[in-house]
Amino acid sequence: MKNKLLFFICLFIGVNTLFSQKKNAQNNLKQDSIFLRKIYTECLENGEAYDNLRSLCKDVGSRLSGSLGAQMAVLWGKQMLEKYPFDSVYLQEIMVPHWVRGTKEKGYVIDEKGNIRSLTLLALGGSVGTNGILQGEVVLFKTLDELKNANRSVVEGKIVFVAQAMNQNATNAFDAYGNNYEIRGHSASIASKKGAKAVLIRSLSMSENNYPNTGVMRYDKDSPAIPAAALSTADATQLENYLSTNKKATIYLEMDCRMLPDEKSYNVIAEIKGQKFPNSIITIGGHLDSWDVSEGAHDDGAGIVQSMEAVRVLKSLNYSPQHTIRVVFFMNEENGNRGGEAYATFGKQKGENHIFAIESDEGGFTPRGFSFDGTDKKFQFISSYFALFTPYLIHLLERGYSGVDITPLKSQFNAIGLLELIPDSQRYFDIHHNANDVFENINKRELHLGAATLSALIYLLDKNWTED
Amino acid sequence: MKNKLLFFICLFIGVNTLFSQKKNAQNNLKQDSIFLRKIYTECLENGEAYDNLRSLCKDVGSRLSGSLGAQMAVLWGKQMLEKYPFDSVYLQEIMVPHWVRGTKEKGYVIDEKGNIRSLTLLALGGSVGTNGILQGEVVLFKTLDELKNANRSVVEGKIVFVAQAMNQNATNAFDAYGNNYEIRGHSASIASKKGAKAVLIRSLSMSENNYPNTGVMRYDKDSPAIPAAALSTADATQLENYLSTNKKATIYLEMDCRMLPDEKSYNVIAEIKGQKFPNSIITIGGHLDSWDVSEGAHDDGAGIVQSMEAVRVLKSLNYSPQHTIRVVFFMNEENGNRGGEAYATFGKQKGENHIFAIESDEGGFTPRGFSFDGTDKKFQFISSYFALFTPYLIHLLERGYSGVDITPLKSQFNAIGLLELIPDSQRYFDIHHNANDVFENINKRELHLGAATLSALIYLLDKNWTED
Repeated sequence: MKNKLLFFICLFIGVNTLFSQKKNAQNNLKQDSIFLRKIYTECLENGEAYDNLRSLCKDVGSRLSGSLGAQMAVLWGKQMLEKYPFDSVYLQEIMVPHWVRGTKEKGYVIDEKGNIRSLTLLALGGSVGTNGILQGEVVLFKTLDELKNANRSVVEGKIVFVAQAMNQNATNAFDAYGNNYEIRGHSASIASKKGAKAVLIRSLSMSENNYPNTGVMRYDKDSPAIPAAALSTADATQLENYLSTNKKATIYLEMDCRMLPDEKSYNVIAEIKGQKFPNSIITIGGHLDSWDVSEGAHDDGAGIVQSMEAVRVLKSLNYSPQHTIRVVFFMNEENGNRGGEAYATFGKQKGENHIFAIESDEGGFTPRGFSFDGTDKKFQFISSYFALFTPYLIHLLERGYSGVDITPLKSQFNAIGLLELIPDSQRYFDIHHNANDVFENINKRELHLGAATLSALIYLLDKNWTED
Repeated sequence: MKNKLLFFICLFIGVNTLFSQKKNAQNNLKQDSIFLRKIYTECLENGEAYDNLRSLCKDVGSRLSGSLGAQMAVLWGKQMLEKYPFDSVYLQEIMVPHWVRGTKEKGYVIDEKGNIRSLTLLALGGSVGTNGILQGEVVLFKTLDELKNANRSVVEGKIVFVAQAMNQNATNAFDAYGNNYEIRGHSASIASKKGAKAVLIRSLSMSENNYPNTGVMRYDKDSPAIPAAALSTADATQLENYLSTNKKATIYLEMDCRMLPDEKSYNVIAEIKGQKFPNSIITIGGHLDSWDVSEGAHDDGAGIVQSMEAVRVLKSLNYSPQHTIRVVFFMNEENGNRGGEAYATFGKQKGENHIFAIESDEGGFTPRGFSFDGTDKKFQFISSYFALFTPYLIHLLERGYSGVDITPLKSQFNAIGLLELIPDSQRYFDIHHNANDVFENINKRELHLGAATLSALIYLLDKNWTED
C-alpha cells in the first residue's frame, strides 16, 4: 500500500515535471519569437548597415591585402567598431600576401584573316606577369578535363584557353561555382606541366557580359609559373565559337602583375564579455579585404556591416549576452586566408573556448537560411529553434561547408558549430570579383534582412545554448 | 468457416490494394520529380523568356492601355505566340480606358523664405489635369487616417500632401503595398470632399530615391475630381521634414494629363487543346499593358514571357496536356482590369469549364512559392505535390489573393483554383510603376527559374488533376 502510494506520488511528480518542462519550453519559444520580431523591426526600421556599407565602399573602396586600401579599411573598421558599445576593440597582427595588378593588362586576338580584336580580361590574383609582350597560338579546351587529358604535344608552346562555363542547371549558383573553382585555381599549373606559355579561362560568372571576374589562383611548386587571366564571358563565348570551327588564332598578352613581399596587416576584433560564460566565445564576422577591381560591396562589405549591425541591434534592445560575443573583420580571405588561420591559431594558443562561429560571405542579397558545419548535437539544437525564422521567410537549414574565414576554427576546436548565412544566390556571380561589385548594386532591405537574421541567430545561440 | 475465409480473402485483397495504391502514388511522385528536373534544366539551359522579354521591352517598350504601344504589344504578342506550337492563337476584343499623361508635368515648392525647389513627381494614372497652373498652400498629413479625420477648415482651398510611407517592418513588401494602396487610390476623393484643390502623395516605394512611382487612382462620383500626383520618396521626405516644423510652403503644379474616350483593344490568347478533357481549361497568364513611364519589364513583361515559356518548355519535352492549356496576355490590368473581367465573362457565356488559373504579376525575381485562392480540396491536392519543388528552393504555399487578372474568374467559376507566383519581393517597389522598370533590371536566371516553376506547376495540375 505504501509502495503503491509512493508510486502514484512519483508518477504525479514525474508527469507534472514533464508538463511543466514542456510548458517552460513553449514559454521560452514564445519569448524568443517576440524578441526576434523586435530584432527584425529594429533592423528594418532603424538599421545602420546600409549607411555603414556606403561609407566602406565610397570612403575606403577597394582593399586588396597589402594595399593602401586594406590599410585604410583596418583603420575604418577599428573606428567604426569603437563607435558602438563594445567592451573592447583591438587588432590582431598578421602577415599577408601582397599581389599587385600593375599598370599593364591587355590582350588581343588576331584571327586567320588578320582581324584584330581586343580581349576584355583580368589577370587572376596571384598570377605572374608576361615579362614584356607574350605571343602565341591559342589552343581551345572545352573543359578542364580535356586539358587534363591532353597530350603535351598539343599544349606545348601554346596559350591555353579553358572555355568551360558555369553550370546553369544548378539552382544554387554556389554549387556551380564549387564545380568550376578548380578551373580558376589550377588551370595554370596543369597547363604549365604540359609546356603552355600562358592560360586564359572563361570568367566564373553565371551571366553573359563584358565584366571579367578575377579571383585567386595558385601555382604548384613543381612547374614553372605562367601568366593566367580570365576573359569576360562574352569574349570567351566569341573566342570559343571561333576556335570551335578549327580555325587558328594568335593571342598577344601583356600583364605586369606581380607578387611583392608580405605586408603587415590585421584582423579587426570587437568583443562583448559574456555575463555567464565569459570564456565561451561566439564569433560573427566577414572579411574586410576585397579584390582590387571593385568596392567589394557584396564581397564582403555586406558581411562586415551585417556582423557589426547584428550586435548593435542586440545592444540597442538591451540584450546582455551570456557568452562572449566577438565581431571579427577578417583580413585576407581573398588570396591566402591568413586572417582566418591566424584567428583560429591564436585562439587555441590563448586557450580560448570557441563554441559557435557565424560568417556572412555570400553577398548581401535576400537571406534564405543557413549552412551548418559541426556536431549532430549542435545541429539538432539549432534545428529545434529554426521554425522561429518562418515569419521572415528563412527556410533553409542544411549541413555543409560554412565559410572560408571561420573554417580554420574547426581544426582547433572540435566541437565548434560553424554557420554561414545563405542569401539568394542568383545575382552573386554577376558581380563577384568584378567591377560591378559596387554599393549601387546593394538593396537596403535585403542587406538589413540579412543583418536581422544574423542577429536573431546570435541571440538564439547565446541565450539557449548552455552546455559548453 | 466460409465467412472467415471470405473475410481473410477480402482483407488480403484490401491490404494489397492499399499497398499497390501507395506504391503507385510513390511511382507517380518519382516520375513527376524526374519530369520537373527536365523542365528546370530546359528553362535554365535553353530558356527563351529572357530574349523574348528584351524584345518586348526594346522593340515595343511602354504600352499603357489605349496607346500606340499597347496596340503594338497586341501585334507583338500575337506574332510571338504564333511562332510557338499552339493549336490556335486569337484575339479577344475589349474596350479599354485611354488616359494620357500629356506633355506638361511639373511641380515646385516655394518655402517661407522664398527658396524655390523643383519637385520630382508623376501624375497618378486617371488623374485630371490642373487646367493651367494651379497654386496653393500645402497642408501635411502624416497618415491617410489623419486626412480622413481632418476638419474641412484645415483642408479647404489647400493642396493636400499625404506623407505616409510604406511599412518597412513587413517581410514581404507586398504586405506593405496592400496597406498603402488606398492612399494612392483614394486620397484625391477623400481630400476633395473636404475642399482640397489637389493631392500629392509619397510614392509607394520601399526605398528612398528620386524615381516617383505612378499607378492607378479612382474618383468617387460624389466629389469633384482634383489633380493627384506622387512625389519621389526623396522629395516626399524633404517636404515632410520641412512642413513638420510648422513652416508654411506654397506649391505650384501644372499637369495636362486627361482621360480620352475608350479605345478598342484585345486580350491575346493561345491554346493547346486537351487530349482527355478538352473542355476543362487551365489558364496561365500575365498582363500585356504597362504604365507609360517604363518598359514594364518586371510589371508585367516578366509574366508575359514566363507564361509563354512555361508552355513552350512542356511542348519541347513532348508533353501532351490532358486539359486545355491557355496562355492569356491580359490587356488593361493597370487601370481598369477590363481584360481580366472580359475573359471571365466571355468564358462563362461560352459555357467553358475553368478549373485552374495561374498568374505571374509580382515581378521576375527569384521565385519563392505560390499563393492559392480556391477550394480546400484543390489546396490539399496542390499541397500533396508541393514537396517536389524543394530542390528548386520553392518553399512558400499560402492561401490568399492570387492575381488581379484571374480573380474575376472566381465569381464565374466557383470551384476554380487560382494560383499566383510569389517571387522575392524586396526590390519590386524600387522599380514598380517607375522609370526603373527596364530590361536591364531583369536577371536572366531569376526570370527563368520563375518560368520553370510555372511550367512545373502547370504540368502537375494538368497531369494529376482528373476530377472536373
